[in-house]
Amino acid sequence: MAAQQPKSDLVLLDVFGSPFAQRVRIALAEKGLAYERAEEDLFAKSDLLLRSNPIQQKIPVLLHAGRGPVCESLAILQYLDDAFPATRRLLPAAADPYERARARFWAEYSDRAHSCGKRLWMTTRDGDGHEEARAELLRVLRAMDAELGDREFFGGEEAGFGYVDAAAAPFAAWFRVYERYGGFSVAEECPRLAAWAARCARQGSVADNVYAPDKVCELVELYKQRVLGQQAR
Amino acid sequence: MAAQQPKSDLVLLDVFGSPFAQRVRIALAEKGLAYERAEEDLFAKSDLLLRSNPIQQKIPVLLHAGRGPVCESLAILQYLDDAFPATRRLLPAAADPYERARARFWAEYSDRAHSCGKRLWMTTRDGDGHEEARAELLRVLRAMDAELGDREFFGGEEAGFGYVDAAAAPFAAWFRVYERYGGFSVAEECPRLAAWAARCARQGSVADNVYAPDKVCELVELYKQRVLGQQAR
Repeated sequence: MAAQQPKSDLVLLDVFGSPFAQRVRIALAEKGLAYERAEEDLFAKSDLLLRSNPIQQKIPVLLHAGRGPVCESLAILQYLDDAFPATRRLLPAAADPYERARARFWAEYSDRAHSCGKRLWMTTRDGDGHEEARAELLRVLRAMDAELGDREFFGGEEAGFGYVDAAAAPFAAWFRVYERYGGFSVAEECPRLAAWAARCARQGSVADNVYAPDKVCELVELYKQRVLGQQAR
Repeated sequence: MAAQQPKSDLVLLDVFGSPFAQRVRIALAEKGLAYERAEEDLFAKSDLLLRSNPIQQKIPVLLHAGRGPVCESLAILQYLDDAFPATRRLLPAAADPYERARARFWAEYSDRAHSCGKRLWMTTRDGDGHEEARAELLRVLRAMDAELGDREFFGGEEAGFGYVDAAAAPFAAWFRVYERYGGFSVAEECPRLAAWAARCARQGSVADNVYAPDKVCELVELYKQRVLGQQAR
């Protein structure tokens, strides 16, 4: 691949459908930071990706002119707070260490929805581990529902959309997938979390950067056909 | 269990041998913070633990008088930096966002040594996944060796022992376990990392809070007998 000169100070090595990359785009949008996207093909990774994240060879990676690459979605979110202190902060302020720790805990915790969800939708209803994945996913969603409580968003420094929201909002678009493969209703099991998901979908930074739930269902089907088809060969 | 009134502002719900709890004790020692340890029995968890970390029901948990409990070892380390700004900082300063992001990346990454290591020592040499675990563990250790380079420590704000060192030092005491079950020498494969492990072992905060390598080997054997014995029944 020919070397390209990036046009922006910030370049995001990205895959549009990745919820981990979506976190970063949501954060950049909330902060009003301009950046250049470099869409990666995960089946033919660019030299730039392999050079920038030789350890994991994964997206998202943020390149910031004159500094080293930043890897791992949540580390990138915290980097953006640190490196652009004049923009809207996502994490609570350093003066509130307990709320910061709490936000870090729940942002990491939200990853579990995605990993349990994948175990759910990659197995058949009577398949190995399906019931356990369904039960664990419900536990995770209910825990998030209880943590959210009656707030509009998980919040950050200011009331409103913050660090945990940016981290978890990409998974809200997967709720329909969880419902389809788990045979439950998020609105019935976790009504506050379902309402939060609807609010996230109306947030500009999310709407612009996350696929609609039907599209996610469609992509999951395509992915399953591709991977399970390869396994059947 | 009868309710107890803690004597210190800081109480750590702890298991001495857990490398994740060791991270926190090392950090507290580096910062010179006094605290009370409440040793947990993971086979009979205290009400205090179940109330303080209802989601994971895991140690370590830090209780700080008048504030909510803080869970997850790395979140606790960052909490200590935020909540006690007058103590020795572990993470690089906020003014150096790239070095902070890099430290966060490598602290998380060091977890992999432990998870690959466990897959290695829990399987027999011709067992399922043993070879893959050995190869992955070597990749992880070599990556850490390269990241360390010729520095004494991974470092923090000041040159010297910092955030990544506190996070990874507990695993250094497991190198002998990796060598025994993996049939390789860390000193030969990763000489700089082996020298770092020796320096960590001489660091007071580590020496006081981590078992010696022989003791770790012994505990691993006991654990295997217990778990595999239960599986064999």
